[in-house]
Amino acid sequence: MKKYDIVIIGGGPAGVQSAISARNSNPDKSIALIRKEKVALVPCGIPYTLHSLKSVDEDIMPDTLLQKNNTDIIHGEVEGRDGKTLKLKDDSQIRFDKLILATGSVPIKPTIPGIDNDNIYILSKDYEYLKKMRAEVNTAQSIVIVGGGYVGVELADELAKKKIKVTLIEKMPGVLPTSVDPEFGHIIQKELENHGVNVITNVGVDGFSNSGKNIKVELENGDSCVADHVIISIGFKPDMGLARKFGLEVNDRFGIIVDEYMKTSDDDIFAAGDCVAKRSYLAGDFRSIMLASTAMSQGRLAGSNLFSINILKAFHGTLGSFATKVGNIAVGATGLTETRAREMKLEYCVGVAEGVDRHPAKLPKASKMNVKLIFAKNSHILLGAQVSGGDSVGECVNMLSVMIQKSMTDMEIDTLQIGTHPLLTPSPLAYGVINATVDAIMKWYH
Amino acid sequence: MKKYDIVIIGGGPAGVQSAISARNSNPDKSIALIRKEKVALVPCGIPYTLHSLKSVDEDIMPDTLLQKNNTDIIHGEVEGRDGKTLKLKDDSQIRFDKLILATGSVPIKPTIPGIDNDNIYILSKDYEYLKKMRAEVNTAQSIVIVGGGYVGVELADELAKKKIKVTLIEKMPGVLPTSVDPEFGHIIQKELENHGVNVITNVGVDGFSNSGKNIKVELENGDSCVADHVIISIGFKPDMGLARKFGLEVNDRFGIIVDEYMKTSDDDIFAAGDCVAKRSYLAGDFRSIMLASTAMSQGRLAGSNLFSINILKAFHGTLGSFATKVGNIAVGATGLTETRAREMKLEYCVGVAEGVDRHPAKLPKASKMNVKLIFAKNSHILLGAQVSGGDSVGECVNMLSVMIQKSMTDMEIDTLQIGTHPLLTPSPLAYGVINATVDAIMKWYH
Repeated sequence: MKKYDIVIIGGGPAGVQSAISARNSNPDKSIALIRKEKVALVPCGIPYTLHSLKSVDEDIMPDTLLQKNNTDIIHGEVEGRDGKTLKLKDDSQIRFDKLILATGSVPIKPTIPGIDNDNIYILSKDYEYLKKMRAEVNTAQSIVIVGGGYVGVELADELAKKKIKVTLIEKMPGVLPTSVDPEFGHIIQKELENHGVNVITNVGVDGFSNSGKNIKVELENGDSCVADHVIISIGFKPDMGLARKFGLEVNDRFGIIVDEYMKTSDDDIFAAGDCVAKRSYLAGDFRSIMLASTAMSQGRLAGSNLFSINILKAFHGTLGSFATKVGNIAVGATGLTETRAREMKLEYCVGVAEGVDRHPAKLPKASKMNVKLIFAKNSHILLGAQVSGGDSVGECVNMLSVMIQKSMTDMEIDTLQIGTHPLLTPSPLAYGVINATVDAIMKWYH
Repeated sequence: MKKYDIVIIGGGPAGVQSAISARNSNPDKSIALIRKEKVALVPCGIPYTLHSLKSVDEDIMPDTLLQKNNTDIIHGEVEGRDGKTLKLKDDSQIRFDKLILATGSVPIKPTIPGIDNDNIYILSKDYEYLKKMRAEVNTAQSIVIVGGGYVGVELADELAKKKIKVTLIEKMPGVLPTSVDPEFGHIIQKELENHGVNVITNVGVDGFSNSGKNIKVELENGDSCVADHVIISIGFKPDMGLARKFGLEVNDRFGIIVDEYMKTSDDDIFAAGDCVAKRSYLAGDFRSIMLASTAMSQGRLAGSNLFSINILKAFHGTLGSFATKVGNIAVGATGLTETRAREMKLEYCVGVAEGVDRHPAKLPKASKMNVKLIFAKNSHILLGAQVSGGDSVGECVNMLSVMIQKSMTDMEIDTLQIGTHPLLTPSPLAYGVINATVDAIMKWYH
């Protein structure tokens, strides 16, 4: 029987990050990572396997990171455990001293009549499934996407670039409904429409049926549309199968329960990533957020704190930092949206700014930029931010994420030293994040 | 005689920002801005008037910001004062209650034999001068640029894009010598060379002389080169003329002395921007740094604190946050470089990381990215950062600037929640800023 000091189950980003951090903190321990899949994909790259990448293979996460960190890769499926001995499907056994569960998430399959139609793909992270999907999509003329979250809008954007007729259906009143406020969802919706996508919101799907070789999608409002294929992308749910078998405490909807150091209810078992129940940064309630930003932070903590606490309490809940891009417009958010602040009954103040991400604005490639900031009304601390604009939105959101994590106030942001450059950023006189802060300050003080 | 509650002298970014902030803090006061120039230019856009912008006019800073903030623009040149009455060249007088000096900086003209040659341009911020320079440069076949700071490399890049034969001469061992460490200067130098620029470093200029219609540049090492024109870009010095006439305390080399609220030695006179003597963020010594990042922060403070202190002590010295771009590579820095840390005799630890700014790396437009971080050895606080890569470097430097201004430690950065996206940022598993932090951590703990 093989024995390892540290065993990680799951080959996605949280598993790989856990392995790297475990190696960094434990140069002399033996580490193995067990995964079911022959190859692991970059999850957020999956929409881009349809067009921007030349094949699904280009989205494979290289094993070099694990190899460089002296981690054995074991292809196999864990079925149960007996104390500290894991039992695999092929009857082999692996003994661990410390275990990290990074079992990730599985796609949600809606219970809609006709859902098992052959023309329906339920977007997954499986290499072979995605290869088949890519091949079929490549010859399609029309596709319906169900689900307008960020994966759904990215799929729509990729397919539109292929000149496929795309219809995107979102049950909520706008796209990205849980990630951003309606006005930012609207920016993305308009950009999709500008690129030829037919976006249908505020209506659910009633059923699927065959229509010759094609598939017919029936909507709740009586309308219907016909397409070559349907892709379902309504989200993922935590994979808690093993955690349950192992007798760990779980929340049935949100995932495995862990403490602030990513330790489960068993002292020798940690968990990180999509399979973990995550509380929101400010409200503290459980939230269905599955993002690399969270998974990486958790993977670092899990890997670093297995044998002793190396990194003090650092995960204060998920900020939901994310960015996406559709057509030529990127949108990102971190912390609270206004919608969520209202739901929480939080006293808040909003600051907004509009500008351009180059200066002078006549420079080539200048994009319009919008910033919306949510401050706590009494403590004047930044709680949330949303940005739209050009490609710099990605790092701009990370700057805002740092500001929230360091509880910056309006006055601190107002006098920040922000570097600017004509080809890279907005004008120093019209820097969106500062101007939106000033907008909030003006509402307070006058 | 006209009377204003607030008068600002100088129409550059620091002056305009002072006016905006003064208006925000004082909705009912009268404000005037006096400037010598008919139009004010965006200073950092000046190199781009040579090629990327279609004319110098495209670099004009619109007066709308002043108009929207109900600020009178007075074209005139202040020559002196009698108490709180300003005397202008045209014999008019303007009375102020509070005054802000934002007189900016003037180009340094080196004392090299032949410097007054007609074929030499000394890069200035003057609209008419730049128009003349642009017109002549447009027909040139070869140009020598003296000075390899960021303005010099930007000029070289712009002229290379015009297919002009460009020679860039820098006296120090590499380009951007005071802004970044040599390895980052080297990245920019190589990119300039890849675009056909002849970069000569470590040698000064001995003299200029006529060579037919052209100009000959003689170097200290005996070499020489001939070109249609020479552009001198060796830096700017604070314009303290008025401050001296007004009897304000100045440092002869670095500028007007101000307190932490931008108040000069006269209680009713404030100053902001290039004309102000600036201390470095950490060492506290005076530094010749003239950047929008600093000027904006000072303009906000000056404008907000004229009549009473609205923003508490917030300017803790200049971080020197900046970014620039040459060819396809951007470079930026904030806080201490390693060179400077060594000069300061500071105990430091360096972390570095190399990666790609998209993920998977096969995506189009992926650029190589380098990150170098300087941490305080004992307190583990981030003190400085340098980044090279694609266009996202601009906002990435601003994120790092926030981290320094909030005294973040290695452990805090290690567990940050950083949002990532295939088309916008590096992979979550290879995010340069975090990987460089881990590199520093590994040096400490093992």
